[in-house]
Amino acid sequence: MKRRTITRATLGRLPLYLKYLRSSADEDEMVSATAIAKALKLGEVQVRKDLNDVSGKGRPRIGYLKKELIKDLEHSLGYRSHSSAVIVGAGKLGTALLQFDGFSLYGLEIAAAFDCDKTKTGKNLFGKTVYPLDELRLYCQMHDIHIGIITVPEASAQSVCNAMTDAGITAIWNFAPVELVTAENVIVQQEDLALSLAHLNMLINNK
Amino acid sequence: MKRRTITRATLGRLPLYLKYLRSSADEDEMVSATAIAKALKLGEVQVRKDLNDVSGKGRPRIGYLKKELIKDLEHSLGYRSHSSAVIVGAGKLGTALLQFDGFSLYGLEIAAAFDCDKTKTGKNLFGKTVYPLDELRLYCQMHDIHIGIITVPEASAQSVCNAMTDAGITAIWNFAPVELVTAENVIVQQEDLALSLAHLNMLINNK
Repeated sequence: MKRRTITRATLGRLPLYLKYLRSSADEDEMVSATAIAKALKLGEVQVRKDLNDVSGKGRPRIGYLKKELIKDLEHSLGYRSHSSAVIVGAGKLGTALLQFDGFSLYGLEIAAAFDCDKTKTGKNLFGKTVYPLDELRLYCQMHDIHIGIITVPEASAQSVCNAMTDAGITAIWNFAPVELVTAENVIVQQEDLALSLAHLNMLINNK
Repeated sequence: MKRRTITRATLGRLPLYLKYLRSSADEDEMVSATAIAKALKLGEVQVRKDLNDVSGKGRPRIGYLKKELIKDLEHSLGYRSHSSAVIVGAGKLGTALLQFDGFSLYGLEIAAAFDCDKTKTGKNLFGKTVYPLDELRLYCQMHDIHIGIITVPEASAQSVCNAMTDAGITAIWNFAPVELVTAENVIVQQEDLALSLAHLNMLINNK
């Protein structure tokens, strides 16, 4: 089963394919990219490319065996290698993310939250415990966690980033509006909410 | 002064340029794309293109008059045409966005929140009032607001979208994981937080 880097746009369509295939009756049937494209009202070329990115088992003019394609889609979406993340910063945004149930669609879950505010630690938020920040390293090592989400204010973001790196985290999703300095092996994905709104504003101003 | 559609990536760099220019001493001096690129450690071709997108006043081999470039950057960032948005859904995520102060960087602000939960309406959250949802239309018309942010659960998102369209909103930033059906003149920007995390997860799994 191959697993290569696929684009964010392709990744976003995989749950659609999976949902469609799961809803169809017989998993021992064959299914073509053409049929999927038609059913989902997507471009055929796009669907063909997407499926080829996640599964090498398509046969020309015949298509894919449904149950194999389902397995490959699940694999690409990380269902077999279930991943957990931790969140640092149990404020409004952190809590909103803890509460959000859309992550499971991609085989992801937020396992726990951390905060240095003692009025927050020890609490249980939507079934997730808030731990003191100094337990981050131990927790990540015990649970083999490599993804961290930063939802602390700008001023604390870099020190949280350092603590995450110390804890063995190699992928950081950063909501604080600050550019983090990290070791080379750490991937930072910056979430810029202000920029998203600004872009939308620009689109309507230019209509 | 021209104002054309610029890409999200360019838009994201404009605050950097503005900050750099404002920090430099004499606004009556000239400044070149080369000098800005060097100071900010960005690619020269990129900076040249970005500046050309926001200002038509650059002169070959001479550059831009600092104060004119500052003015054009401010214009592109919407500083002169200050825009307000409303948020519907005063839950965790909605409150987190109300509290977030990064929007002002782009000349944007969230003016008010709306909710249909009577235990939330009438409250003041970070200086912003939470109004009952049925006052949305009047509020948007009185304050000439055309941007709406949806932070309600999936099941209510479409009806909130309809209420926003009725209220004259033409740009919607949707955090609910559901595809909205709208009139043709309404722009919807979908914020898919689960997809962002899934993409990050895929990047580290393929390292």
